[in-house]
Amino acid sequence: MLIALDAMGGDHAPAEIVAGALLARKEHGIESALVGSKEIIEAELAKQGEPATSIQVVHASEAIAMDESPAQAVRAKRDASINVAMALVKRGVAHGFVSAGNTGAVMASALMNLGRIQGIERPALGTVAPFTDRGVLVLDVGANADVKPNYLVQFGQMGSVYAERVMGIKDPRVALLNIGGEEGKGNELAQDVYQRLQHAGVNFVGNIEGGELHRGGVDVVVTDGFTGNVSMKVTEGVADFIFSELRASMTSKLHYRLAALLLRPGLLKLRDRMDPGTYGGVPLLGVNGFVLIGHGNSNARAIKNALKTASDGAQSGMLDSIKTALTRKS
Amino acid sequence: MLIALDAMGGDHAPAEIVAGALLARKEHGIESALVGSKEIIEAELAKQGEPATSIQVVHASEAIAMDESPAQAVRAKRDASINVAMALVKRGVAHGFVSAGNTGAVMASALMNLGRIQGIERPALGTVAPFTDRGVLVLDVGANADVKPNYLVQFGQMGSVYAERVMGIKDPRVALLNIGGEEGKGNELAQDVYQRLQHAGVNFVGNIEGGELHRGGVDVVVTDGFTGNVSMKVTEGVADFIFSELRASMTSKLHYRLAALLLRPGLLKLRDRMDPGTYGGVPLLGVNGFVLIGHGNSNARAIKNALKTASDGAQSGMLDSIKTALTRKS
Repeated sequence: MLIALDAMGGDHAPAEIVAGALLARKEHGIESALVGSKEIIEAELAKQGEPATSIQVVHASEAIAMDESPAQAVRAKRDASINVAMALVKRGVAHGFVSAGNTGAVMASALMNLGRIQGIERPALGTVAPFTDRGVLVLDVGANADVKPNYLVQFGQMGSVYAERVMGIKDPRVALLNIGGEEGKGNELAQDVYQRLQHAGVNFVGNIEGGELHRGGVDVVVTDGFTGNVSMKVTEGVADFIFSELRASMTSKLHYRLAALLLRPGLLKLRDRMDPGTYGGVPLLGVNGFVLIGHGNSNARAIKNALKTASDGAQSGMLDSIKTALTRKS
Repeated sequence: MLIALDAMGGDHAPAEIVAGALLARKEHGIESALVGSKEIIEAELAKQGEPATSIQVVHASEAIAMDESPAQAVRAKRDASINVAMALVKRGVAHGFVSAGNTGAVMASALMNLGRIQGIERPALGTVAPFTDRGVLVLDVGANADVKPNYLVQFGQMGSVYAERVMGIKDPRVALLNIGGEEGKGNELAQDVYQRLQHAGVNFVGNIEGGELHRGGVDVVVTDGFTGNVSMKVTEGVADFIFSELRASMTSKLHYRLAALLLRPGLLKLRDRMDPGTYGGVPLLGVNGFVLIGHGNSNARAIKNALKTASDGAQSGMLDSIKTALTRKS
């Protein structure tokens, strides 16, 4: 089981990416192939005190920057690390792909090189929100700003498979993000999707409101990529806001400093739980391969966690299960 | 300046509503008219040790429950407290209206009794998110699940007036909630609205992402009622989640209990800031009257704050300014 790893992608590439690959091997025995400029990667390995032969390196002569126009860059730079890594997956040399690089470019390259699973209308980005120990999978969180009802039905089917196969949740509860609890609530899209999800072969438990996401009553939350993206970013933003306000209030007086000292373990644990790096990345569901996209600011730990998820995911039989789910009706 | 107050609306009516009216008079000198069952209100006043003559009571023989179908209830119960109060505003007896009751019913009654401001296509619910000292007005947060581009342009115009007139923000910065920062990002709706807001006579500063809302760089955030509702509920939910996790981590060990004691003032202050009751209610913008809808679980303090906002708002000349804003182009 080999995972292709984009050594050139992310704000902290290549140092944290290389460090993450080494960590994943050490802690989980996961083999990855570092894809990118051989020269840069080998220099980084040397800097981290590793012999150049200790880990597989696959050369790619180009790299796509975080702010490049995705579709264009993927077509123009055929030898970009993302494209080269994707080709490894396509040829079966690698069994999964992890990148902390340009999200749009990873999506475009996956579509171009791997293609969609037959029958899937649109791939979706899922994110694992840390509201429960097992996590809550929310999808789509940004791949599809404009949607049709059937896209969301397929998001529910793919999400259900991912929750079961990769997150280890039996018979996952699938809910529709909406602005009211009862049937008939919401915009036209939500009302339509509600009806369809009842006959989609998933364990559909109805609507869920934004204020209930954190209560842990559901496992998979289906939404369009616009609402999903805003929701997950608001989640990160509010957590950020509260932690920084707390920090500010704590250092304002001496006895607050003492309290901060005492509280540090609990606060750090919570921060850790809210940190996107804990889950390591968001899966791109619906393409012919296991593709995981890390946060742009991924550090070694986030990369290690992403490699673990990709390794588990690639072994899970998820792709076949998605194909089956598409034809299953309740 | 008299504010009509729905004495029958909300989870804690009539006790907290009556107490809030008394508080508002005591602290801010605001006169309100308690609208609802005379018998129930007078019994409540007696219970709170107030003579029945100390505050104006306007009898309404019916009340609309929180879970009643709004449009139907408003039409069937002509003598419901919400309808009676709205009529006071229409006749100019009262200058604003506050209710912690059924949100849908207040909106339906406002449309039926007061009507839309001429030229306004759809009224919007605005909420003041507590991310800055002055607050950030987000609208729409639920009045319009399905929208057309021009609705959002008018939300921006009305929001700008509210921020300036009622929140006291000079030349408020208006932003569009979107899934990317640059022009051209987002779904079809957002791309269209972006263009229109540039020529809407407001201080349009571009897109804002969900993760930036709390940074305080903007004053008014324009969005559709579906995304806005989900965003604000996610905000409340995440705050709830973090506070309860912190509480749990604090009581797990003895020294955490000590820390909790020390920290209490800072935590309470933050909780207070995140509490919807601090702002007292969300304005319904675009109808011919100043209408403020409180959280269903409003307590006396929330009602007091809502009455203060309604009193300020009714005196602000907001309605005339909205009419002017509609005809002003940049």
